[in-house]
Amino acid sequence: MYIAMNRFKVAKGSETSFEQLWMSRESYLHELPGFIAFHLLKGPQREDHVLYSSHTVWRSFSDFEHWTKSEQFRRAHANAGNSAIRPLYLGHPEFEGFEVIQEITPDGAKKSAAA
Amino acid sequence: MYIAMNRFKVAKGSETSFEQLWMSRESYLHELPGFIAFHLLKGPQREDHVLYSSHTVWRSFSDFEHWTKSEQFRRAHANAGNSAIRPLYLGHPEFEGFEVIQEITPDGAKKSAAA
Repeated sequence: MYIAMNRFKVAKGSETSFEQLWMSRESYLHELPGFIAFHLLKGPQREDHVLYSSHTVWRSFSDFEHWTKSEQFRRAHANAGNSAIRPLYLGHPEFEGFEVIQEITPDGAKKSAAA
Repeated sequence: MYIAMNRFKVAKGSETSFEQLWMSRESYLHELPGFIAFHLLKGPQREDHVLYSSHTVWRSFSDFEHWTKSEQFRRAHANAGNSAIRPLYLGHPEFEGFEVIQEITPDGAKKSAAA
């Protein structure tokens, strides 16, 4: 399992506009193989911004990589580029990708995955 | 839904020891109400460290908060304090908690949650 996160420092006062743009954005993720879930996350408040992060769970890194080369990715990001989203956050979004190396489920079972 | 993450900058060369300590650590998370899943994540490589993060999904912030005040939390962190884990990472773990404000599932359905 692979988790792709993109962190946004949203300027204070722009939280509602930022959330509304995400809510109204077209998503094509579910058309891709290996897509498990997408979440938009609202994180801690800091001096001049609130941390948000997109959070997409894929079956594997290669499913994620396949998405980044897809027509759906191109379409989703063409829209983002033309939208009013850019002035709402400070600097650039920061990408972080994570491999799941251990999982614990509600029954207490532990699973390790080769990273 | 609430996601609690604790970020660790693991010194290069200490990755295997860090992972083994987590794998062998006792977890009591599944004894708590509202626990959905725990994942240990291996993230990007940087100059002098590799970013790891614990990643715990709770039904709500209040379930997370209840866990932090529980006997199981105290036991889990007493063990961590006595272990050999501390010299393996740089600085302090950095905590970040996130509220889920939008979800997209594999059928393409979107759900918004009041943050």
